[in-house]
Amino acid sequence: MLKLLEKLKEKVYEANMELQRKGLVIYTWGNVSEIDRETGLVVIKPSGVDYATMKAEDMVVVDLEGNVVEGKYKPSTDTPTHLVLYKKYSNIGGVVHTHSEWATTFAQAGMDIPAFGTTHADYFYGDVPCTRDLTDEEISNEYEKETGNVIVETIGDKNPLEVPAIVVKNHGPFAWGKDADSAVYNAVVLDKVAEMAYKTMTLNSKVERVKQHLLDKHYLRKHGANAYYGQ
Amino acid sequence: MLKLLEKLKEKVYEANMELQRKGLVIYTWGNVSEIDRETGLVVIKPSGVDYATMKAEDMVVVDLEGNVVEGKYKPSTDTPTHLVLYKKYSNIGGVVHTHSEWATTFAQAGMDIPAFGTTHADYFYGDVPCTRDLTDEEISNEYEKETGNVIVETIGDKNPLEVPAIVVKNHGPFAWGKDADSAVYNAVVLDKVAEMAYKTMTLNSKVERVKQHLLDKHYLRKHGANAYYGQ
Amino acid sequence: MLKLLEKLKEKVYEANMELQRKGLVIYTWGNVSEIDRETGLVVIKPSGVDYATMKAEDMVVVDLEGNVVEGKYKPSTDTPTHLVLYKKYSNIGGVVHTHSEWATTFAQAGMDIPAFGTTHADYFYGDVPCTRDLTDEEISNEYEKETGNVIVETIGDKNPLEVPAIVVKNHGPFAWGKDADSAVYNAVVLDKVAEMAYKTMTLNSKVERVKQHLLDKHYLRKHGANAYYGQ
Amino acid sequence: MLKLLEKLKEKVYEANMELQRKGLVIYTWGNVSEIDRETGLVVIKPSGVDYATMKAEDMVVVDLEGNVVEGKYKPSTDTPTHLVLYKKYSNIGGVVHTHSEWATTFAQAGMDIPAFGTTHADYFYGDVPCTRDLTDEEISNEYEKETGNVIVETIGDKNPLEVPAIVVKNHGPFAWGKDADSAVYNAVVLDKVAEMAYKTMTLNSKVERVKQHLLDKHYLRKHGANAYYGQ
Repeated sequence: MLKLLEKLKEKVYEANMELQRKGLVIYTWGNVSEIDRETGLVVIKPSGVDYATMKAEDMVVVDLEGNVVEGKYKPSTDTPTHLVLYKKYSNIGGVVHTHSEWATTFAQAGMDIPAFGTTHADYFYGDVPCTRDLTDEEISNEYEKETGNVIVETIGDKNPLEVPAIVVKNHGPFAWGKDADSAVYNAVVLDKVAEMAYKTMTLNSKVERVKQHLLDKHYLRKHGANAYYGQ
Repeated sequence: MLKLLEKLKEKVYEANMELQRKGLVIYTWGNVSEIDRETGLVVIKPSGVDYATMKAEDMVVVDLEGNVVEGKYKPSTDTPTHLVLYKKYSNIGGVVHTHSEWATTFAQAGMDIPAFGTTHADYFYGDVPCTRDLTDEEISNEYEKETGNVIVETIGDKNPLEVPAIVVKNHGPFAWGKDADSAVYNAVVLDKVAEMAYKTMTLNSKVERVKQHLLDKHYLRKHGANAYYGQ
Repeated sequence: MLKLLEKLKEKVYEANMELQRKGLVIYTWGNVSEIDRETGLVVIKPSGVDYATMKAEDMVVVDLEGNVVEGKYKPSTDTPTHLVLYKKYSNIGGVVHTHSEWATTFAQAGMDIPAFGTTHADYFYGDVPCTRDLTDEEISNEYEKETGNVIVETIGDKNPLEVPAIVVKNHGPFAWGKDADSAVYNAVVLDKVAEMAYKTMTLNSKVERVKQHLLDKHYLRKHGANAYYGQ
Repeated sequence: MLKLLEKLKEKVYEANMELQRKGLVIYTWGNVSEIDRETGLVVIKPSGVDYATMKAEDMVVVDLEGNVVEGKYKPSTDTPTHLVLYKKYSNIGGVVHTHSEWATTFAQAGMDIPAFGTTHADYFYGDVPCTRDLTDEEISNEYEKETGNVIVETIGDKNPLEVPAIVVKNHGPFAWGKDADSAVYNAVVLDKVAEMAYKTMTLNSKVERVKQHLLDKHYLRKHGANAYYGQ
């Protein structure tokens, strides 16, 4: 097991650094985790450690109840949000949280990110939703866990991999995927898609969503049973 | 012939990499091709291969019917769009497709990119048009080929080199030129022109197009029979 | 004492260079200072010296009345503004002034930067205020000192570290902190928060501020008596 | 004389490269010149030569009537515009033309760049004007020279160094200064000032100009008889 976790720490560390290389975070404003489904252990970034000095060995290992199993640092304060998602959805393996500027703009505006084109449809099978406000009670009691709960409530009974991202109202985006790398990839795409949605809406205030047929075509040629994009 | 294709693969590879260097694409979001008019063969980027690891030898050779003549990878899913353009217009030698952010904004907004100034006029002899919606039938049957057909329909009976670019509604830009390099050049200019058009329109909602006389002057001093720009 | 000031000059020099690395200033458009509370001496950037050639030894040492104690250059013209803040508030140790583009946009628009989300709340406990206009008399007489006075007037009886930044009307931002580094950090965050506020407001003209409860939660989990963010 | 021109060619070459380093131009979209007032000769960038391969020795020397005195290339097509400015104003020594994106946005919108703050006032003593449309006759006959004439007409009887830049309607910015370096500096500042003006106007549609008293203060503390900014 230790061998596996060493590799996973390296992978999660690299995924965190990729957030910075892609321009999604400054300072400590993001975190990535991945779960090892065999052991049920999650590797996640430590809280408030600067990307400039962080190392793979600084990653923290927690169990699904949030107990620290290994690591000299405290895990990210957002750890309870990640754990809610891992516990609820067995088909996701990596989770990312950032304050990337375009997705956070929609979070602050309290608006879904509408599907306006094929760039969106290639990755997200419909609008990327914005959650409701958390209640004062939810904020006061186990805030980070309730953030996970409101994400789950917003996804409803859908497969979370069909739209692998969300914006939490007045906060920022969470994205996920089969592992840490694909979660980061989806977080990058999310911000680019949000950027183009912002520009589309400010250019044409009467713009309409992409046709359902075109949304289906692009999503399914990459992700459907008869996908023919890629090798 | 093989010698020629080796050189062409190198050229098309470099043209694809230039898309990334100029910031027009992230991940696998673009493709460039060039046709060898003597043999009628087209060299194009493989589908879904990451720019970071792609090599010149990974380029795919197809004939004008889309049959793979050489290459270990599948060609870009957008290959049928490129082929429609090569078959229809004998004066174009290179084609580019991207999801560059400013041109895609106009595609998503369903709007032509208006000619507002001399930057536009130096390269595009009039507005850059946005296509109509594809019908559900066109999307269901040979979608990528129909994308080429709607581009041809939009160009109408004009010389495609007078306005060497278009935005496909809810999708993104295609650009072309006498070869792969000039197609990439036009794709870069297109996005810059789209950026300045967006900013012009959001700054002054009552702005009018550049005067026809000034459009003529700038386009023709670079491209007309009596051109005097450059060496 | 000289030993201390050598270290402080190096620190203030590095803090000034960090402004440029973070993209907050071009040319000579910014300045950072830090005070040594034991001696009451302030180290500050020289006036109008280019970042490209500036060295740590070029930093200027002044007392709280603005007399140059050491240094071959004249201190920043904004020195009197810094000194007003150091004299008024004993709990701040570093001050920064820039013309960073997003914060300056709010200064020019004459608008407070509203708290729209948790990114803002993590650092600023409420809106970042914009000062009133300076009067003609204030501009004519000791302009830079009056700039400091209007900042103090705007802060009122609040603790300046709760919202460690301000925008001066038609001018630009000032930020501060416990030392030069934290002042620069706050200046970087300020511009990012201003950027997202601009985008939020232009996307949704009816947007409302973040709920007070969520503002409290985020500010206090980082800065409150029971803070649990970080190590 | 030849010795002088060699140095001037090197200086003008470097000033042209600085345009690219500062992000004001892509490809061949800009040109810088400087005049040697003793000989009345002007050194200017060649037409349509790519920045990537251009060398100092490629600079072209012309006299004030536009005759090529030395150089293997044709001079910039915009040379006649530069010459009109040098002939009219004996106190300017360098001229720059770009299609930098924010200044060009105002040119395309047909709007002056209003003075909204001290960043503007530090360099431009009032709004940066936009010229009128050129007439069809002016465009047809000696277009580039008429562009110079309309700039002169717009400046009127003012000292051109008080507002050392202009935007030509539907075209782009020209900037100038005592030499090539200061002209480039002013072109960089112009684009930054235009960027912040755009953002200010789109954030607050009712925004008013900076007070005259503050404009005076900032311009004159840098450029007036009793200037006290800098060393």
